[in-house]
Amino acid sequence: MKVVKRFSLGELATRIGATLEGDPDVVIEGLSTIDEAGPAQLAFLANPAYAKFLPTTRASAVILHPSMKAQCPVSALLMPNPYAGYALVTQLFAVRLEGDRGIHPSAVVHPSAQLGKNVTVGANVVIEAGASIGAGSYLGPGCYVGGHTILGEAAYLYPNVTLYEGVSIGARVILHAGSVIGADGFGFAPDKGRFIKIAQLGGVVLGDDVEVGANTTIDRGALGDTVIEDGVKLDNQIQIAHNVHIGAHTVIAACAGISGSSRVGKHCMIGGGVGIAGHLTLCDGVHLTGMTLVTHDIKEPGVYSSGTAIEPNKSWRRNVARFRQLDQWVQRIRELELKGAQELKKE
Amino acid sequence: MKVVKRFSLGELATRIGATLEGDPDVVIEGLSTIDEAGPAQLAFLANPAYAKFLPTTRASAVILHPSMKAQCPVSALLMPNPYAGYALVTQLFAVRLEGDRGIHPSAVVHPSAQLGKNVTVGANVVIEAGASIGAGSYLGPGCYVGGHTILGEAAYLYPNVTLYEGVSIGARVILHAGSVIGADGFGFAPDKGRFIKIAQLGGVVLGDDVEVGANTTIDRGALGDTVIEDGVKLDNQIQIAHNVHIGAHTVIAACAGISGSSRVGKHCMIGGGVGIAGHLTLCDGVHLTGMTLVTHDIKEPGVYSSGTAIEPNKSWRRNVARFRQLDQWVQRIRELELKGAQELKKE
Amino acid sequence: MKVVKRFSLGELATRIGATLEGDPDVVIEGLSTIDEAGPAQLAFLANPAYAKFLPTTRASAVILHPSMKAQCPVSALLMPNPYAGYALVTQLFAVRLEGDRGIHPSAVVHPSAQLGKNVTVGANVVIEAGASIGAGSYLGPGCYVGGHTILGEAAYLYPNVTLYEGVSIGARVILHAGSVIGADGFGFAPDKGRFIKIAQLGGVVLGDDVEVGANTTIDRGALGDTVIEDGVKLDNQIQIAHNVHIGAHTVIAACAGISGSSRVGKHCMIGGGVGIAGHLTLCDGVHLTGMTLVTHDIKEPGVYSSGTAIEPNKSWRRNVARFRQLDQWVQRIRELELKGAQELKKE
Repeated sequence: MKVVKRFSLGELATRIGATLEGDPDVVIEGLSTIDEAGPAQLAFLANPAYAKFLPTTRASAVILHPSMKAQCPVSALLMPNPYAGYALVTQLFAVRLEGDRGIHPSAVVHPSAQLGKNVTVGANVVIEAGASIGAGSYLGPGCYVGGHTILGEAAYLYPNVTLYEGVSIGARVILHAGSVIGADGFGFAPDKGRFIKIAQLGGVVLGDDVEVGANTTIDRGALGDTVIEDGVKLDNQIQIAHNVHIGAHTVIAACAGISGSSRVGKHCMIGGGVGIAGHLTLCDGVHLTGMTLVTHDIKEPGVYSSGTAIEPNKSWRRNVARFRQLDQWVQRIRELELKGAQELKKE
Repeated sequence: MKVVKRFSLGELATRIGATLEGDPDVVIEGLSTIDEAGPAQLAFLANPAYAKFLPTTRASAVILHPSMKAQCPVSALLMPNPYAGYALVTQLFAVRLEGDRGIHPSAVVHPSAQLGKNVTVGANVVIEAGASIGAGSYLGPGCYVGGHTILGEAAYLYPNVTLYEGVSIGARVILHAGSVIGADGFGFAPDKGRFIKIAQLGGVVLGDDVEVGANTTIDRGALGDTVIEDGVKLDNQIQIAHNVHIGAHTVIAACAGISGSSRVGKHCMIGGGVGIAGHLTLCDGVHLTGMTLVTHDIKEPGVYSSGTAIEPNKSWRRNVARFRQLDQWVQRIRELELKGAQELKKE
Repeated sequence: MKVVKRFSLGELATRIGATLEGDPDVVIEGLSTIDEAGPAQLAFLANPAYAKFLPTTRASAVILHPSMKAQCPVSALLMPNPYAGYALVTQLFAVRLEGDRGIHPSAVVHPSAQLGKNVTVGANVVIEAGASIGAGSYLGPGCYVGGHTILGEAAYLYPNVTLYEGVSIGARVILHAGSVIGADGFGFAPDKGRFIKIAQLGGVVLGDDVEVGANTTIDRGALGDTVIEDGVKLDNQIQIAHNVHIGAHTVIAACAGISGSSRVGKHCMIGGGVGIAGHLTLCDGVHLTGMTLVTHDIKEPGVYSSGTAIEPNKSWRRNVARFRQLDQWVQRIRELELKGAQELKKE
């Protein structure tokens, strides 16, 4: 596959709000890294570690910070945040190869559902009663929108997304394939050795500009709602349990799981495979490294971790065995200290 | 969305088997917690920590234990297990907003498939040859039922569930969206640096009253079956490998993974993100805390754990480095003890 | 369900390339383990621990190593790698109960898509513009094939698989239900407290004979491609991030997650729930035990691990508390050693 898009450097500068140093008529056909870019490609310099490649870059132009202008041997797009510039350019070069616009004849749309202008409804999509789809939204083939579920403007659903009933989704939200929003939270009342299902009567609310990765699941609340605030980005295979609240502009990497009723603050960065126990509160600005298990509240911003580091299995087995005796070894250190103190006393 | 259901307190008492103290004609329109409930809402008191809210609750009625009757300032529904009463009431207030009953014209049902009475088959459902769907079952849009797969009575499949061929599912089972039951177990024979696929010839058997969360996967057995006994509740994103056996009324939280041929007992509680290695046996009544890794059999009921606790990254890095030297530090404690003993001897 | 296949022992010997010792006309109706097999069943002896069952096996025949021939009381299929022989026989006994061959009338195939000979396209499948499906491929109901995506010969897609646009897949690949290939990698540029999406312009390339488990996700590259080489086997619920490269004939167990731009060598074995951080390189022949977290490059083949071992929660809580003080306890050991040295000096 090759769909080639072309932009003049001048147009790119205008589109991303950069100051152009060089020839506005240079044609750019793609993006690459500063060390690998070739002719007709645009590179970017965001990480100082890559500055060493700048003098010899074969790119036609480079997005970089104004302070680097003098060292740039080719045309330059100057921006205070070159990485943001790179992000904006990737969006210009992106190609979406989806099928025809409009409502596919195989889609099953309930007469009471409301569709905004310029909505695309793919093949085999099902939209239940009372649902509402914002203008300019795209629903890929096989998506399901439950009763009374609301999508904001310009929502983009890749194929085979499932939205249960009573879910509310903001504007410009992107939902990747296989994501499931609004399934029942995991709630049961134990009774004589069995479990009675607690019907989950709450909903799910996603703010604007949220992105949800492939096969990620966000459960509906038990009584109140599960809430994902504006600008939150969720990677693939994440589990968000009932009544969780995620603060705005927090990013969560793949395979993380957040247990019921926990609150994560704004501007947090949650690493891959992290687990957060239930009913906890994490303040704004918390960073969790990969596979950390959180079992108590976090009240100070900062970086937190748990687990142990990788090592050869042979030494690991010995150390793990010692870990299981750790409290005893600490007692033996204390006894040694006590004996030492008694020795000193004797002297 | 707002679908309001209303019940008189007298009717609720009858439906959940509670003893009513108060006015049977009070109208209840919803449920809430004891501290947040308002007029026309029913609250419950199951956790003694919430008893302090009872004197000032604004709920119209409260489900509580008979021993708390005297302290209840409003109407009461008395039950020995108030949390179970709450669960039963949530079921009464639940609303399912799915589409029309009956068989949707877009469904593809093989002529040899058998459908019980009052079965609903949603849009784009595919049911293969020889499958059997129990009376009163609901199959949401986009579900796939493989050849000779059997569903019991009143099964409820949310949209986009995939059942491979030869799967057997009990009565009143709930399968959430994106769950996949009966995919091949992960089996390969190494041969000259490559892997030869071992076709998975067994099936999957789910008992009655099992619930399976969104995007959970349960693989078919290699030769025999993978078995999930009655009343097991599986949360989202769980992986159950081939030939696993889960005992009745065990609950497993999200993101857990159970490796091939392991047996989990009855009435176990498996925390989120837990991993259980292959070919192990866990007895009845085992509780595993979140993200525990199980690498040997468990023969005594009780609570088990592994891993380390969360701490600031800075101190964690130091401690993790020490963990990798742990066995050496233990040797140095021993040497100190030995020297101490020699000192004593000298004296 | 019971579809019975029958083979004569002579035919089986020919089909798997084994040397037959015994009666070629014996009829085999199924496979079982050496201790559980009954009449008309074929067993195998690959693990020496099971040799004790050989003298009393009730199987009609056993696949085993030529060196075991004398001890086998029944007909034998002799092979240097009996486990590979078992794998080949399972494939002969496998039955696929899918629906009719051909293109289902409900499928939506873009006129510009190219289909090879003997392709099966199930109900509700959507194939977008410019896609290409190799001869003999099977696409189960509800699958989605994005624009310009290419499938090799004899690909087998179980129901509800989603392939985004621009994905390239080799011959004889098996994709299980709910797997998603080509979703956007997780890339955002931070800018004034918000995140700007980095469009993911690369693709995904899967080699020949790759198998992808149910609900596994493989993201497209940011600029270059995500690459899975020939013969790689991925279990269920795995996450492969953008620009990851997995070497040939590596196997990865369920629930593992590999972060962006990391490279895993050939012939590696990655355990369940393993996490690999981003931008790392693992050499060929690395084995990682379950739930290990990899945070640095691995340059030597071998077995590696992290984490701690399971123990009763009561002692674990004590040991975990000590772990958080570990660096301090090490300092106290050092002080004890120092004092001991000073004592000796004094003497």
